[in-house]
Amino acid sequence: MPDFNDASATHRLAPGHHTVDIDSTWAVGDVPNGGYLLAMMLRAALAEAAHPHPVSTTAHFLTPPTSGPADVHVTVLRTGRTIETLRVSLLQEETPRVELVVTVSTLTRSAPVEWVGPLPEAVAPVDDCVPAVVDLPDGTHVGLLEHVDIRLDPQTLGWFSGRPAGQLSMRGHVRLADGTQPDPVVLALAVDALPPTVFGLGRLGWAPTVELSVLTRGLPAPGWLTVHLRGRLVRDGWFDEEAEVYDAEGALVAQSRQLARIRVT
Amino acid sequence: MPDFNDASATHRLAPGHHTVDIDSTWAVGDVPNGGYLLAMMLRAALAEAAHPHPVSTTAHFLTPPTSGPADVHVTVLRTGRTIETLRVSLLQEETPRVELVVTVSTLTRSAPVEWVGPLPEAVAPVDDCVPAVVDLPDGTHVGLLEHVDIRLDPQTLGWFSGRPAGQLSMRGHVRLADGTQPDPVVLALAVDALPPTVFGLGRLGWAPTVELSVLTRGLPAPGWLTVHLRGRLVRDGWFDEEAEVYDAEGALVAQSRQLARIRVT
Repeated sequence: MPDFNDASATHRLAPGHHTVDIDSTWAVGDVPNGGYLLAMMLRAALAEAAHPHPVSTTAHFLTPPTSGPADVHVTVLRTGRTIETLRVSLLQEETPRVELVVTVSTLTRSAPVEWVGPLPEAVAPVDDCVPAVVDLPDGTHVGLLEHVDIRLDPQTLGWFSGRPAGQLSMRGHVRLADGTQPDPVVLALAVDALPPTVFGLGRLGWAPTVELSVLTRGLPAPGWLTVHLRGRLVRDGWFDEEAEVYDAEGALVAQSRQLARIRVT
Repeated sequence: MPDFNDASATHRLAPGHHTVDIDSTWAVGDVPNGGYLLAMMLRAALAEAAHPHPVSTTAHFLTPPTSGPADVHVTVLRTGRTIETLRVSLLQEETPRVELVVTVSTLTRSAPVEWVGPLPEAVAPVDDCVPAVVDLPDGTHVGLLEHVDIRLDPQTLGWFSGRPAGQLSMRGHVRLADGTQPDPVVLALAVDALPPTVFGLGRLGWAPTVELSVLTRGLPAPGWLTVHLRGRLVRDGWFDEEAEVYDAEGALVAQSRQLARIRVT
């Protein structure tokens, strides 16, 4: 089994031109996981970038790519002394599948927190959480979970046994099964790894992400990442999902938001 | 004084090629307001788009444009039956200044709310709020406020008299001074119109937006928009700011998030 670095590696053919090989097992059902695609695209961007850390990554998912080879094109839009912005497109058959813009900078591990808001609702400790299962009640095989070790807070797991909590929330802990320690690329994977929050309404099934944006707020310490997901509104076939990710030392290291589709009832 | 439609109008020279005239008065100090630039870029996108409503708009601000003419280039990335995604670049002197990707669809005014989370902290009624002043304590002239009528909740206004509330929050009501009623383009303006939340820490002064993303969650009713801003973290010269916008009938019609820079103390 390839580890995360292998599965998300890019091959630089020329400045701004990379190829990747989308692994069929980093997927939910047949569809490559969005965070995994972000990780590949970020690696291509960082190979071209003047600064080492993505601080803001915004991705629009156009058409789900299939597993197998894909091209990644990187264009530097503007380089400055402290920040740089790049455009990244992932293409198959010369058709864009994911379009990403990322602003990079240099984050400092030791930078003090000037102000932080109140913590969200606590997550049960890892040992009191439930390992996510690789096969969902509707039969979907979540290959992603062979690579990403996810422990879910039992309070947000009622949907699995037919008793959904009745709200858009999901909480748990995440680490890579291969022992890779968290960094900003792993954070992009972590924000999209838990089951969709709409499962909390009993709305199981396919919930494709249309747009996912991630802010990196710090360089994570080694160990488990703790992920809090919540959403605000389900309407007209759309729902939102916001993540806050804390590292093993309790620092807020990432925030994300996605807009996703759901079948209209 | 040009009204909002005039100030944000685009002129279509050819498919995908527009020019705009950035008005010097829709600004904070000398810098055009980010939401105003988004509004122009959205108008260019919507002139090319197969669906009428932006549902997810992500913008990276590369270099502040100056007032005066600018080019706007629109590229359709993918068209589908229900959604389409477009890339929009605003350029001056052939250099990109703002890079935007927008996904459009068709929203339904009458679509029922399937689920909505708890309301955020209440905002004082319009008549109990304080009109935002056009000149800030540090001498910055906010020309934007000659066009946008903003009433701020006194509870989030302590910074103006030297008693900041000590948290990242700002709340108020917004409408266009010329009587233009809200629509998705006005929502993009509304999310970036209030003073930055870091003023609540007594950190007055320039706080440039690096990335701003907006979700449109409904078509707003006529009348005032109510805007709740809060942020989670100030660290390493960066802060985040999240908006929720409610229409006059109490519907959640927009969500946004921005990442912005602040002087490191």
